[in-house]
Formats: sequence, structure tokens, C-alpha cells
Amino acid sequence: MSETLSTLLAPRSVAIVGASDNVARIGGRPLRYMREAGFAGRIMPVNPNRETVQGIPAFGSISALPETPDVALLAVPADATVKAVEDCAALGVRNAIIFSAGFAETDAEGLRIQNRITGIARESGMRVLGPNCLGVFNPSTHFYGTFSVVLDNAFIQPGPVGIVSQSGAYGSHIAHLARSRGLGVSQWVTTGNECDLDLAEVLHWMVDQPDTKVIMAYAESIRNHEHFFAALDHARNREKAIVFMKTGRSDVGAEAAASHTAALAGSDAVFDAVLRQYGVFRAATTAEQLDVAYACAPGIFPKGNKIGIFTMSGGFGIQMADDAVAAGLDVATMPEPVQVELKALLPYASPRNPVDATAQAVTDLPLMTRYIRAILDKGGYDLFVGIFGTGPASATFAEPLRKALLEAAEGHEDKIRALTMSADPDVFRRYEADGFIAHEDGSALIKALGALVGFRKSFDAAKSASKVDAAQRIEIRPGKHSERSAKDILSQAGIAFPREELAAPGSDVGAIAERIGFPVVLKIASPDIAHKTEVGGVKINIRSADEARSAAADILARAAETCPGADIEGIIVAPMISGGVETIAGVVNDPVLGPVVMFGLGGVFVEVLKDVTFRAAPFSVDEAHRMIRDIRSYAILEGVRGEPPADVDALAELLSNLSRFAAAHADVIESIDLNPVRVLPKGQGVAPLDALLVLKEPRP
Amino acid sequence: MSETLSTLLAPRSVAIVGASDNVARIGGRPLRYMREAGFAGRIMPVNPNRETVQGIPAFGSISALPETPDVALLAVPADATVKAVEDCAALGVRNAIIFSAGFAETDAEGLRIQNRITGIARESGMRVLGPNCLGVFNPSTHFYGTFSVVLDNAFIQPGPVGIVSQSGAYGSHIAHLARSRGLGVSQWVTTGNECDLDLAEVLHWMVDQPDTKVIMAYAESIRNHEHFFAALDHARNREKAIVFMKTGRSDVGAEAAASHTAALAGSDAVFDAVLRQYGVFRAATTAEQLDVAYACAPGIFPKGNKIGIFTMSGGFGIQMADDAVAAGLDVATMPEPVQVELKALLPYASPRNPVDATAQAVTDLPLMTRYIRAILDKGGYDLFVGIFGTGPASATFAEPLRKALLEAAEGHEDKIRALTMSADPDVFRRYEADGFIAHEDGSALIKALGALVGFRKSFDAAKSASKVDAAQRIEIRPGKHSERSAKDILSQAGIAFPREELAAPGSDVGAIAERIGFPVVLKIASPDIAHKTEVGGVKINIRSADEARSAAADILARAAETCPGADIEGIIVAPMISGGVETIAGVVNDPVLGPVVMFGLGGVFVEVLKDVTFRAAPFSVDEAHRMIRDIRSYAILEGVRGEPPADVDALAELLSNLSRFAAAHADVIESIDLNPVRVLPKGQGVAPLDALLVLKEPRP
Repeated sequence: MSETLSTLLAPRSVAIVGASDNVARIGGRPLRYMREAGFAGRIMPVNPNRETVQGIPAFGSISALPETPDVALLAVPADATVKAVEDCAALGVRNAIIFSAGFAETDAEGLRIQNRITGIARESGMRVLGPNCLGVFNPSTHFYGTFSVVLDNAFIQPGPVGIVSQSGAYGSHIAHLARSRGLGVSQWVTTGNECDLDLAEVLHWMVDQPDTKVIMAYAESIRNHEHFFAALDHARNREKAIVFMKTGRSDVGAEAAASHTAALAGSDAVFDAVLRQYGVFRAATTAEQLDVAYACAPGIFPKGNKIGIFTMSGGFGIQMADDAVAAGLDVATMPEPVQVELKALLPYASPRNPVDATAQAVTDLPLMTRYIRAILDKGGYDLFVGIFGTGPASATFAEPLRKALLEAAEGHEDKIRALTMSADPDVFRRYEADGFIAHEDGSALIKALGALVGFRKSFDAAKSASKVDAAQRIEIRPGKHSERSAKDILSQAGIAFPREELAAPGSDVGAIAERIGFPVVLKIASPDIAHKTEVGGVKINIRSADEARSAAADILARAAETCPGADIEGIIVAPMISGGVETIAGVVNDPVLGPVVMFGLGGVFVEVLKDVTFRAAPFSVDEAHRMIRDIRSYAILEGVRGEPPADVDALAELLSNLSRFAAAHADVIESIDLNPVRVLPKGQGVAPLDALLVLKEPRP
Repeated sequence: MSETLSTLLAPRSVAIVGASDNVARIGGRPLRYMREAGFAGRIMPVNPNRETVQGIPAFGSISALPETPDVALLAVPADATVKAVEDCAALGVRNAIIFSAGFAETDAEGLRIQNRITGIARESGMRVLGPNCLGVFNPSTHFYGTFSVVLDNAFIQPGPVGIVSQSGAYGSHIAHLARSRGLGVSQWVTTGNECDLDLAEVLHWMVDQPDTKVIMAYAESIRNHEHFFAALDHARNREKAIVFMKTGRSDVGAEAAASHTAALAGSDAVFDAVLRQYGVFRAATTAEQLDVAYACAPGIFPKGNKIGIFTMSGGFGIQMADDAVAAGLDVATMPEPVQVELKALLPYASPRNPVDATAQAVTDLPLMTRYIRAILDKGGYDLFVGIFGTGPASATFAEPLRKALLEAAEGHEDKIRALTMSADPDVFRRYEADGFIAHEDGSALIKALGALVGFRKSFDAAKSASKVDAAQRIEIRPGKHSERSAKDILSQAGIAFPREELAAPGSDVGAIAERIGFPVVLKIASPDIAHKTEVGGVKINIRSADEARSAAADILARAAETCPGADIEGIIVAPMISGGVETIAGVVNDPVLGPVVMFGLGGVFVEVLKDVTFRAAPFSVDEAHRMIRDIRSYAILEGVRGEPPADVDALAELLSNLSRFAAAHADVIESIDLNPVRVLPKGQGVAPLDALLVLKEPRP
């Protein structure tokens, strides 16, 4: 796999099928870009009507090529594409990039043709990118297998940012924004309809590229969640940051996404949680995606979250402190003796943090240097940010300021040193060359710095994580399962349920209830009745044997009435457990992301506040702990209003076991509900009181 | 007031006390700016050591001035300021602007000197801006009463944006950003320490300026909440949008704010809710403040929230649809017949909304025009946005695109027509001249469009709002108040409590309980016991007269034991009310914003989720309804899990009455708690079960 993509991005030779003399056309642009940029490999235009294209000798057909190219760019209409793909495969071409649209995104016929191309790729081993994509480029080798107009006026410099995008327009847009920001690009790949190569495979490969420090990704959907998770996991193990734009957040967006890429968009909340699980930063806006990628470019991910803020304006300092707290950073106070020291230099300064040297520092740069040195040398901070306002925009002030700053920051090259200021782009580039991160917008800057700390946490957590496998396979018979059967199966997966007994039809419920101990709950047991309460199939708080007998008779009578054909196994007699915190756990088999475990607090928390979270299965007990802490109402599990803390350890174990079971049986399970799960006081475990297991409908 | 600020911003004559030949100095910059810009009024430098300053005849002292200036700029050190202020007042100068720092923001001595200046202002009637401010400017009259370096390289054009900022650095920064955005400024005022003129007064005046369509404000604190609210109310009545940056959100920020402006920062959640109450847009970041102000500049605030999105890239369309939904906009589907019409023009287009004409529209501009016309003419949208990506950056494409767009949008000048694209600033200016709002960042654009709809709602709500006055004054005796006394007082303010009786010491609690009807609650009645439950002073669910008698004895014994000196009025006998939804209402007297009513759901909702909201008192029943809908868990009041909807009308009336009471007695009330307030099913009213009234400590 790796090698394929390496030849795709750095081919020794490239054929352009449908090459054009017109540099504005799809078949003309790639050739123009490679000529102008100075691509060192062999370029072979294919055009049956010309001797040369843009001055380069052309060939009449793919089969007439004098050597087998590493990459063939197919700039031919949709209806000529299958033939071109076949010819390339026959010649042994290693990679083909299909530019044209009109395939799966259009109609069923387009999908059929696209599937044929997929088939050719699978049979021949030739890798195909697209169709309906803008191709690839690689600034360091000057390979431009793309017709993106974003390169019309200027190329993009090599640099630390990898870009992979399902949308060519979006990929072009962020490449443009990166260029405006002075951010170089290592590799740029757009995947379009993904008939063969997909986002996950490209991501995985990019992680291994030494020149790539951070990856900007854009996706509307995911083809194969296992490959996708493997790529994300690989990235955090290699300490490569991924900054992700996933669209289709709203129902409207998801509808548009489905019509656009012919792919199902997964539930957005699930996607969001799973990206968090893998330590990926999900950008809310394109601007944020750029900001975070920019901050990652130096490759410094600070260990701690203590930030020292230098300012010459109180107002800006306050604003940045607010933003820092919102970004999860710690605006820790400067050590007391250092404050005293700084006060001695300037009595009306405010050296707490933000360290405000007042406008005095503008006229007295040595003072500024001493203040900043004090923050860096003695503040104990992991990150530093200086607020310089419009000062650097002044031609007379920018250079002395830069020198003073450089002097102050010397010896702290391993720390994040950031600036916010207003100035022309060339001034920014000079500060960046000195090792500073510089941003015009202080709020955006600080949010990006918060993301750096998050990446470090995720990298470190990945390092200490133990490998979690799916559970051992359990035999699950097809068809509907009753509560009892569901509990039986899940018990084998390590999920403990309170002791309960089945009173088979005709047996004495009263006697069984006495054995269990009052109060008890009675529940109808039937694989055909999923929602027991709705048919009067549950009676709670039963306090005597007689009461149990009459309640059981009642339940059976109601069941006979409301579900006449149902297969009745009997009545479940269970202890009445009412203490602890009511929660809900479950499994959904997400159409995009596969088996996913859900967790939330029960009752109004799940129904009104939608305070639930998700994790892709399987996951460890440690990850389950992070999952539990995700919910807004987590404090309830810690004990509020005099309640004891709940047994979160037992809950985490249950969730991890559930995830391992879900992963092992993803092919057969549609969904699982454990509702409610009562989380008892610390040390007393968890009590899942009900279980519902729904299997996938067998495929016709 | 109005007239004063008008002379301050457009003086006929100005004196510069401490005028300097050095154009980089505080006393030199204003003179340089006015000379270069061509200020038409008389400029009178004051400098005892020079005949002329920057070529203009100077005067030896303030008293030597040949005429009384409308404005005196005091560019003298802090220790010379009081004398200068006195001299100006003696001469009858109308306005003085004090630049220098070293007053209340520094230490107690500075505060003392500042208070002297305030005294001189009050006595003389001369208005004072500052100290510790950057002054004012007015581009249309070329009056530059400021030494802000932001004008160093270029002036700022006149335009629709008023700027008022407590921080000079922040005011300069947003002026700079407005200039970069091509946004002109009507008036610019920085208020610094606000020894006399404050933010509220400037805001109020700016609202009345016809050239001001939108105001950007920055505040760290508010001097006088009544003036502030009056200014905000004035703005919405005049349909002027205010875009507010309030710092001190975090504890750290608030600490820095306090040390910076010597002003108490109010609780941020309160501030946030109150700005919402008055229809002010609170910007989270400076970028957002600019974005929203920019979108307000044309002065179009759409009636509805339906947005039509045109795109040539599916990916961008999805992203914008997501953003639109998040911004509260309605991405309504195009009418079916129009979709059919558009499909006929281009079969593989996706004309739902986002209306995706695909990249085909790039090469076929008449097609694009027809698509956009269809959206504008037949879509029924209030807002239109077109996504153009990097297209307009191309020199060959920008002009034809502009013409095609102009043709498509003709006749829809009353609608918001917005674009997102990447291009050079001059391209943006051309589209703006055509009446378009244009932004490089689609997400930021759409968020700003959402703000426009919010402004319209607030303007309209203000129009239909009935005036709410504070309640009639009720006699409240000083000292501590028991629950009974609090209920007595609040009952007079229109808040109805369930019927209950006091069993005075020695009377028969059992008989009273029988009269009330079982079950009942018994509560100790004492002005000295605020937290009754904690001392065993409450017994619930009493079901017989005997049980009541023994419970009462128990309560009294416990009270005697735990609060030996307490004044015991007796035992309150109240009906046991347990239905409905548990809520909490209260009043806090915010140090910055005055009497404020709080509302939230009870129990874990308030304790764990902090799901509460606030409104400044007094407010109407309509505003109370908006307040109730503010909370995240509002749906619980609408009825969930089979519960009936709660009596929200009665709740709104209670909150409004509470607010009118709080406003009428703000001078004596410290806080009020109504906890719990049970909101019964619709038609059955509300039952506040407990009341706590705390009066302010009398000042020594």
C-alpha cells in the first residue's frame, strides 16, 4: 500500500490521456503546471490527433506508450473512461487518476460504470484515484497530477502540511488558505468518489511521510471504518496531528452529503465522539482547521497546559485570559518573588498573569525583554503568548521589536512561543522564521494552542494504552431474543446482571419471589415483546407472595390480550433495585462507523438533554472512563445532594465489555439496550436491570 | 447630553495642552493627524516654551487662549492634569479629553486625584473624557482628538460603524480591522477610566447619529446599569444594532479586569443573559465582532430566516448548510416546480437547497445567472448566499462573474445578498459596491447572517413590548425576615403562595393540620433560621393530627437544641404539594447590573448542570416567557415521559412580578430565593413552597 501511494505522489513517469494544448482545459492544466514547475520525470501526452502537445511529443494511444508510466492521468470524458482504464491496466500502469465526473454521484448507470472500474482495479492490481476528483500534487517533486485552478497564479511551497480531501473544491480552498498563511504543503490528495483508493488509505500513508507534521482532512463520509480507525490510531502512535473537517452535521447537510457523494453520512454526534476518542481535532470551521494546522506545523506539542501571557494593554490581556480558560489552558499566576522583581522594574505594571507591562514597554524595549525573559525563565509555563497589537505594523517598530523578542525568547526553542499582532504578511513570515507562531486573531490563536495540548494528551494516552481486542465469539442463534436470552448471552460476555429467576408457565411465582427476597419486580418473558411496559408486562415493588401471584396472573392475562400470538416463556422474577444513579448503555451498529457504544444518564437526561456520548467498539476500560467523563452531567455520578459517589469503575468495565462484545459480533448485531443500568454506590457495582438484543435482519 | 457629545466629536475649535513638535509624541500626534487630514476648525497648541508648534502659533497657557475651545486635549503628565482641568473649567471649556494614565487604575492616590477631576467636572459642567484614554476621532469632520498609532500609516474612511471602547488599545485594534475590511467609521470614542463620560452615555448618543448603522462596543465593566440599559433599549427602539465585546468571562479575566479598570466585573452569566434580553449581539471573539458589524453595515435586517444557498461545489454547499442550521437559519427546500425547471436546464444539478449547479456553472455563466435568479425570484427566501470559492481570485473570471451575479440579483436590493469567495481586497470592494456582503470565510459569514435575523426579532419585540414599571413600593421593615414574613411581603407584590397557617407556640398543630387537609408539611417559623432543613426544622408528608402534634414537638425540641437563642414564631402548617415540575426562582442584586432575576429547573439541573438564566429587573411577562425558554431543559416544562405540560403562563407571571418587586426595592434587597417553585400542570398555576428574603446590611 505505502509503496503504491509513494509512486502515485512521486512518479518517475506520467502519461496524460486526453492531453490538450489549451492550458485552461482539464487535459491542459496538469501538463502546464508540470512544465512550469519543472517536473523531472518523463511526461507522455496521449492524444491521437497531435504530434506534440504543449511542445512535448505525444502518443496516439495508451498502448503506443514507449514505457509504462507510474501514473496515468485520465482527462477523458466519462464515457471514454472505462476503455482508458482497461488499456492502462493491460499495459501494467501502476496508478490511474480519473478526473471526470458523471459516475456514482450522478445516477444508477454512473454507479454501474464506476463499479466496473473498481472491478478492473481489483483484478489488475492497478490503483485508481477518483473518479470525480481533482487529483494530487507534491510540491517537493513538482508533480502536478491535478487540474485545480488554485495553482493558476502561483504554486504552493513544500512544507509540513499534508492535505487529503474527498472534495476537490474544498481541498483546493484549504491549499489556497495555507498558501496565504505561508504554510507549505507536503502532499495534496483529493479522493472524489473513492472507487478504489480512499481517504483512510491516503491518511495512513501520509502519517508515514517524514515531511508531514500535520494533516488536514476533509470528509463527507467514510467508506471503511476499520481502515479509517486504523489510520487514526496510526497517526496518534506516530504523533502526527490530524485536523478534521467533517460535513453533514445538520440534517440538511447530511441530505446534501448523501446526494453528493452517494455515501451515507453517519450520525454526527457519533462521528464527533469517535474523532475525540482517537484524539483527532474536529474543526468547526475552515478557519479553525487552518489555525490549528498552522499551530501544529512546528511539531511542538506541549506537555502541560500552563500559559504565560505578556501584554502591553490590559484589555487585550483580559480577553486572552478569558479565551485561554475557555480553551482549557491554565493561566497560572507568576511566582510571587518574580512578581515582586517585575514590580520593582515598573511600579504600575501588573505582573500576575497576564503580565501587563503597560504601554511603557513600547517605548522601553529592554524593559519588555526583561519582562518576557522573566515569564519564560521563571514562570514555569508550557506555552508563552505575547500580545503586540498593531505595533509590528509600524515600519519603525517591527524590527526592534523582533530583535528584542528574539533576545528574550532565546533558549526556549522547545516551548510554544506565540504572538498576536497586526502586520503585513512579510512581517509575519519574519517572526515565523524566528520560531514564533504568529496570528492576527488572539482568540483563534489561543484556541489552536489549546488543541496542541489536546494532541499531546492523546499521543501520550495512546502510548500507555493496552491493546483491546474484541471479545471471544459467542454462539448467538438467529431470530428474536427475549430479555432472558439477551441477558444470558451478555453474561457470557462478562456483563453481570442481578440474580433473577424465570417462573415458567404453571410454576409458583410466589414461592420464587420469596426465594429472591422482597420487594421484587415481575416482567413478562417473551422474545416477541420488546417493549414490556407498554403492554402492561411489568409490575414493580411487589411485597408478598400473594401479591406476586396475582400480579403474575394479571401480566399473563394482559399479554394474552395485547399480544395474542406471542411466545411466552414465563415471568421473570427479579429483586427490586432502586438505589444508585440511573444510566443507560447501548450499542448501535452505525452505518458508517460500525459498532458503537452509547452511554448516558437515564430519564430526562437522555430524553431532554440528549446528554449521551459514544465510542467506537472495542475500547479499553481507560477509554470507558474518558467516555463516562464526556457527559455534561458527569458530576451526578460523583455524588451530589448528599448522595455517595457511584461505582464508576464497575460502570467503565461494563462499557468496555459491552464494546468488546459488540465488536466481536458486529456482523450479526443491530442494536443492544441496557436500560436502565443502575450504578450503585462505589464498591457495590452496577446493576443492568433490563436488556434488549436486536439482531440484524438476515440479508435476502 | 446629546449636544455635549456632538461638540466633543465635531468641535469648532480645539486646544492641545502639551502640544509637541515631535509627531511621535502624545502631544504631537493629534496635531499631526488634524493637520494632515485637514481639520477645518481652529487648532490652538498650548506650550509655554514655543512660539509655534508644528508650524501653528502656540499659546503659553490655557488662560492665554484667544477663544474658549469646544474641546481641550490634555497631553500633560498625570501630576499636571488637575491644574489643567481647573484652568479649562475656569475658562468655560466645554469638553476636556485626558490622555495620561496614572489615576484610578494605579493606586488609591490615583483614585483620589481622579475623584477630584470628577468633582471639577460636576461643579463646572465641563464634560471630561478619560483619563487613561486614547480620545476620539470623527473621520467625516477630520477631527482627531487622539494619539492612537493606528492612524500612523493611513486614516480611516467615514462609514456606518460607530466604535466605543473602554480600552484604547482594543478600540484602535478594531478600527484597524474595520479599515482592513473596507468598513468606514462614523465616530470613534475611547472612554478609559470614565471619571465623567461613560460608555452608556456615548452609546446612547451614537444611537442617535444618522450616519451610524451599527455600533461596536467594548467594555470591561459598567459604571451605571440604569444608563446602560436605557442606551441598549434606545438602540433597539431605533433599530441600531450593537455588537458587544465584554471581557472578564473567566475568573482569571475578571481578576485582570478588576486590577485594570478598578471596576467590579459582574458575573459573566448574568451579563450574557442581560445582553440577550436587550437584543445585543455578544461577540465571542474580535473576529466575530467584526464579522457581525460588517454584515450590519448595509442596514438590512431580514424579517424571516429562510436562506437560499447557491453553490458550484457540493462539499462547500453541505458545509454551509450545516453552518446555517447551527446559526438558526432555515435551509428551506426550493419549491418542487422550480427544482424541476432547474433540473431541466442541467440534469445532474442538485436543485434542492443548497442549489448545486456543479462546476458546469463556471464555464456556463448564463446558466449560473438563471439558477441564481430562480433562487431569488421563486425560492421565497429572506437571505441569499452564493459560494464562489477561489473563482473570483482569477483575473479573467472575476469580472464576468460579477456581471452575471449583478444581473441575477437585480430587483432584490432589499434582501441580504451574500457571497463567500477568495480574492484580493479590491475585488471584494467591487462586489460590495454592487450591494453584496462578501466574506472569505463561509462559516463566519453565515453566523453573522444569523445575527441579522436575531437583531430584527429584537427590534420587532421592542416595538410590541408594553412598558414595564417597577412595582409599587411596599413597606419592608429592616432586619431579618422569616419565611412567613417574606411570603407576606411577596404576596403583596402579586406572588401567590399556597394557603398555609401559623401554629403559634401553644396552639394545637393537629387541629390546624386537619383544617388545611392531609398530607401536610410542618416547618419551623423563625427569622433567625434561614436554612430550616439543616436544623431538622421541616417534616413532610404528615398524614394525621397526632402525627402532626408529635412532629411539631420534635421540631421545636430540635430548634431549642440547635438554635438556642432563636426567636420562634411557631410552626407553619402547609399543604403537601408534590406534583408539577420543580423549579427555582430568585433575585440577586448584581454589583454591576443591579437587581437581576434568576430562573432554572430545580435539583440537579441547577446544581450540576447550572442550567439557569437571568434577566435584569423589571421585565414583562413576554420577556419572562423568553427567559423560561432560555434554559436548556425547557422541554421538561412542556411535558416529557407522559407528564402534562406545566403552567408556564403562571410561571412567567410570577417571574415578571418578582422582577417588578426587585426593581422597586433594589435599594434594600440583597437577595430572594423561591425554592422550590412547583410549576403545576397547565391551568393549575404555580406553587412557590418556600421564600427567603435577605435585606442589604445597613451601611455603617
